[in-house]
This record gives sequence, structure tokens and C-alpha cells, in this order.
Amino acid sequence: MPTLHVGLVGYGLVGQELVGQMCAAAPKLEKEIGVRIEIAAVSRSRTMALLPAGTASLTEWPKSQEEEADLKKLGQHVVDLAAASGGRALIVDNTASDTPAELYEAWLLAGADVATPNKRAGSGPMSRYEKIMEASRQTGARFLYEATVGAGLPVVGPLQALLRAGDEVDTVEGIFSGTLSYIFNTWKPGVKFSDVVKEAKDKGFTEPDPRDDLGGTDVQRKVTILAREIGLKIELDDVPVKSLVPEKLQTWEAPADKKLGDAFVEELAAYDDEMDALLEEAEKANEVLRFVGSVDVKSGKASVKLGRYPKDHPFASTQFADNICAVSSKWYTPRPLVVQGPGAGAAVTAAGVFSNIMEVMNGMR
Amino acid sequence: MPTLHVGLVGYGLVGQELVGQMCAAAPKLEKEIGVRIEIAAVSRSRTMALLPAGTASLTEWPKSQEEEADLKKLGQHVVDLAAASGGRALIVDNTASDTPAELYEAWLLAGADVATPNKRAGSGPMSRYEKIMEASRQTGARFLYEATVGAGLPVVGPLQALLRAGDEVDTVEGIFSGTLSYIFNTWKPGVKFSDVVKEAKDKGFTEPDPRDDLGGTDVQRKVTILAREIGLKIELDDVPVKSLVPEKLQTWEAPADKKLGDAFVEELAAYDDEMDALLEEAEKANEVLRFVGSVDVKSGKASVKLGRYPKDHPFASTQFADNICAVSSKWYTPRPLVVQGPGAGAAVTAAGVFSNIMEVMNGMR
Repeated sequence: MPTLHVGLVGYGLVGQELVGQMCAAAPKLEKEIGVRIEIAAVSRSRTMALLPAGTASLTEWPKSQEEEADLKKLGQHVVDLAAASGGRALIVDNTASDTPAELYEAWLLAGADVATPNKRAGSGPMSRYEKIMEASRQTGARFLYEATVGAGLPVVGPLQALLRAGDEVDTVEGIFSGTLSYIFNTWKPGVKFSDVVKEAKDKGFTEPDPRDDLGGTDVQRKVTILAREIGLKIELDDVPVKSLVPEKLQTWEAPADKKLGDAFVEELAAYDDEMDALLEEAEKANEVLRFVGSVDVKSGKASVKLGRYPKDHPFASTQFADNICAVSSKWYTPRPLVVQGPGAGAAVTAAGVFSNIMEVMNGMR
Repeated sequence: MPTLHVGLVGYGLVGQELVGQMCAAAPKLEKEIGVRIEIAAVSRSRTMALLPAGTASLTEWPKSQEEEADLKKLGQHVVDLAAASGGRALIVDNTASDTPAELYEAWLLAGADVATPNKRAGSGPMSRYEKIMEASRQTGARFLYEATVGAGLPVVGPLQALLRAGDEVDTVEGIFSGTLSYIFNTWKPGVKFSDVVKEAKDKGFTEPDPRDDLGGTDVQRKVTILAREIGLKIELDDVPVKSLVPEKLQTWEAPADKKLGDAFVEELAAYDDEMDALLEEAEKANEVLRFVGSVDVKSGKASVKLGRYPKDHPFASTQFADNICAVSSKWYTPRPLVVQGPGAGAAVTAAGVFSNIMEVMNGMR
């Protein structure tokens, strides 16, 4: 039976969830599609474990096999196992770091597929991105990144399929941050903006520093990935972002005796009147505020900003922490192709990566 | 370079569109993924043409090579070409007929993949469906049918990926008829139901006999396909359908001197008061009427009927002829995964089939 040898870089929430999904699915996949899946290696920030051929499951960190992390060595181990079994090598990067992204090209050139929810390659330097894509073309090893946009929501794959079939995309736009979606779905006239941010923070929906969400960089990365997907050669910095962090607070530092998140929402309250005015204006026009990333193919431009949408627009119907992505094209007209739903969280992010792993396995049988 | 040899059964709107998409995409695919695509055979209702190896494109029906249609012979030709080149065989059924579906099992057993927008296998006898699935498991040849539900919208594939990753689906429900979607999106209080049906008919959105749409059989087929996808062993007849055709008109025949469609909407006018009352009741409750197919995993039941939905429900936000499908699951909670957009038409249906062809090609490199 052909075997897929998987090396996992990053063993946090998503990495562990993915290992769980893979191990639980393996017996059924063997039976149904006749392909075996094995865990060849795992790594976390400082250490890694290279596992022997035949490792079918992993229920905890393999402490006894732990050694100093060396991602080049990890990649080689996975490729070697695949060569020995006549199977295939796949490296999954579950980090949010640039370090593994620097190695994608080499891994692909060695014949290993790479799957990842990490946005660094797709939104990092164009020169590195092009080298990665070229390595994939040269060797036929696949670079797969469905989970970089909208987590498990089917966004990247369907867009790729549509373009390959010959459709011509006009615009891609959407709400790509679960945190900002929650904030703008919750915020109603009469409620203070800083109170909504505080609630999102208290519920654990924001990063420890809420500015990491409000600044829009995460959305900027996703928009860059989508823009490149439809052929624009742009860098992250070419995507202007209208940050929701007031200018004075961008470099502000919390007093030493206070928690950063709490202190920040206190500071934010000073800007509530400004924000409330925006919401009231929108409400008067029967519109809603949404933090939207968009790519316009004709002008070749992409942007991330707060926009106003009529109450019967698809973006107005988002609830809770929904992500939503709308593709308008020659074929998807007069109405766009829209995908909507939870676009963050370990289970659905791992499921997005798993859908890429399934593509590889389906091709092996 | 590995070659995919494609035999096309059915050369109507979708078949011709697909040939166009394939031929236009072929040079780019050769360069980008290193796989060649060739047209091995085409058939229409009574005739077929078996084409020689190396047929890279087809701009019109190959009249000079025409012979009497024989789908078994066609399948063998495609499989033979693939064996000779060391490539892969794929048969695409673009018909809506049972005849090719009867051969899927044999084609899969011979090692050919089968891709189709034809709903007959997925919603036909369970015994045939199981044989098809078993043949695919045995040989590793793939049975692919993304375009059977929602045309090009990514519905079947994402659902399969989610289930394989280990998610547990609670319900799948949606609006799966572009025609009925248009009718219920257009129909407003004060407008007669029969006038809306007439408008849809005049715009060419309905079948020549509008009862084929209003009866709900097409939706019943799609719901059966989705129900089987999530593990229910049900037959088409196990899915109750609340037809929108009044009982007396179900067996009614048009007078010989009148066009069926025109005569039917005239007859339908007698039932307008009944229908209008339904709409007014819904409107009073701030709800809309939608013709919805649904599968409930817990009860093991599926149904197709007119339902009422609050105006802030995703189904209420459909416009024009949108299809929409919502999947609620252990992971997709509290909000479902929703896919929405045009779910009918030759271009997007062919694109749905093309996405399946791309899966096969990606596995060949």
C-alpha cells in the first residue's frame, strides 16, 4: 500500500489537532482509498523528534526521541522515509513563522509536498514566493495552502479551480478576520466601540494585544495571498490598510503595573465618539460597517479598510465571528460565488490543512 | 509527460462548454503541472467518434469519424489509449440519462475515473450506487460528481473533506433549484404566484413543462445525493417532496392547440389565492418563503418542501437565481458553513466538472 510520510513543523493547537484528525482518519482512509498515512517527524520551537517508519499514531509529544530542532534534517528524514517505501513525502508547517517558509523551496525541490496554514510564504517577499512556485512547477511537488484564508472554508481551492477552468475574475472581497467580524457584528448604535472590543478581548477572541487584530495586518496578509492567486504581482506593502488603531495608540505602551489588553481598551474609550459617529452615519443610510479586504483585478489594486454596506448585502448578513468571501467573475454573474462561516479556530484550520492532505492522498492511489 | 485521456459522453451545452474549457486550459496545464490532456472520444445520442491518440483539441463535432454510438466500445477505447501511453483514462458523462450510469461500475473496474454532473447514479437505485462506490474502492479509480449539486459551487468536495477529517455533520440544507430560487426571490406580496412562474418561464428559466421544476424532483435528487454523502442509505422515494404543482394539474394535459407552458400558467392562476395566503402569512411573521431541501442526520431523514425563514436567515438573503447550501456540524457551530451563488448554467456546471478533472490531473504529476 502506498504510504504518505508526514513531517509536522509546529506542535501547538493546530498541529496537535491535525495529528488527532490524521490518526483518527487513517484506518478508514486505508480501507477506502488504499493509502497509508504515517507520522514521520514532529517539531516544536526548540526540539523535534524524527520517528521511525511505521509510526501510525501519536497521542503525545514523543519525549524519549526528542532532539534539538533542525528543520533541514527533519525534511531530509521525511524525504528519506518516502524514498525507502516508494511513497510520498509531505511537510506540514503549522507555525506562523518565517523560518519554515525559508525552507519550502528546498523541500519542494527535494520532491516533498508542502501544506500549510502559515501565511508567511503567500504574503512574504515576492521573490521567495516565486521561487517556491517555480520549485513546485519544476518537480511536480505541490504547495498547498487552503487554510491560509478562511481556515477550513473552501476559498483558495475553488478560486484556483475556477481560474484554471478559464473563468475571468473581476473582484474578490471579504471579511477575513473572525475577531473583527465579531466586533462589527456585535457593535450596535448606542453601544461604545471600546466596550465591544473589551468584550471580544474578555471572551478570548482577540490576540493578547488587541492592536494585532485592529491593525488589520492579518487581513492584509490574506488579501495579498488572494491577489497573487489571481495573478497580481504585489508585495504586502502594496496593500494599503486603514488601521482601526488610533494613531496615538499605535506606538503607545501599557504602564508596567497593568495588563496590556485591559489598559489598551481603557485608552481606546477616548476615541469612542469618533467611532460612534461613523456607525450612526451608516445606520442613517440603512447601512452597516464591515472591515473588508478586497482585490480588484482591473485596477490591479488591493486594499483593507472599513466599508459601508447596504443591509441586504451579503456582508451585512454575517453573524457571530463569520468570515465571508465573495468572488465576482465572468461566470459568477450577476451574483458572486460566496463562501461564509467560521474562519478561525484549531479544528476548522486543521480540517482545511487536512483537505489538502486528502488531495495528495487521492492522487496516490 | 503523463497524459489524461478523456472520453466525453454527451455533447450538448455542458459537453461542448467543457471541451472548450479543456482545450483552452491544456497548454497552461502542461506548463504548470506537467500533465497533458487529450480528447479520446466524444459521443452524442446516436453516434460517437473514437479519436486517435494525440488529439489535443476539438473545435466542432468530428463528423468524418462518426460511427454508431456504443458506450462500452467508447470506454474500452479510452482505457486502451491510456494503457498504451502509460497515462490515465477518464470518462465524463455530461448526460442526464441512466444509460451511461449503468456503465460506471464497469468503467471504474477497468481503471477509468468517472466524472459527471449527471444525478442518476447518486440518486438512482442504492444497489447500483453501492456497486459503483465499491468498484472505486477496489480499483482506486475515482467517481467524481462535484457538479451534481449546485453546479460549480464547491459543495460536495468540501463536505467530503470535512467528513474525512472527522467532523460530525448534523444537518445539510439548502436551496438547490435556480428556477425555484428565482421564483421565490422574485415573488413579493401583491404579485400573483402564477405571474411569477410565467415570468420565469418567459425568461427561459424553467423547463418547457414548468411542472418539472415546480414538482421538486430535481431537488429531491440532489438531496438524495447529499444524504448518501453523509452516510444515510436512502432511496429517492424515501425523500418526501411537497410538490408546488396543485394535485389536479399533476396529470393535466394541455389542449392540442396551445403551448404546454403557456396553458399551464393559465391553469395555475386558479390557485393564486391559496398561494398568496401562504406568502401573506409569512410576511406577517416577518418571514420569507423558500423551497428547501434538507437532510437531518440524527433522525436519518431528508425532505423537500416549502419552508418559512426569518428575514435575517441566510436563506432569506438569496437573490436572483442563487443556490445556497448550509452545513451545520460539530466544528461548524454556532454558525454553519454556507456556500452560495449561481448553481446552474453551462459554464459553471462545466467548471464544476473541470474542478474534478483538475483533481485527477494534480494526482498524476
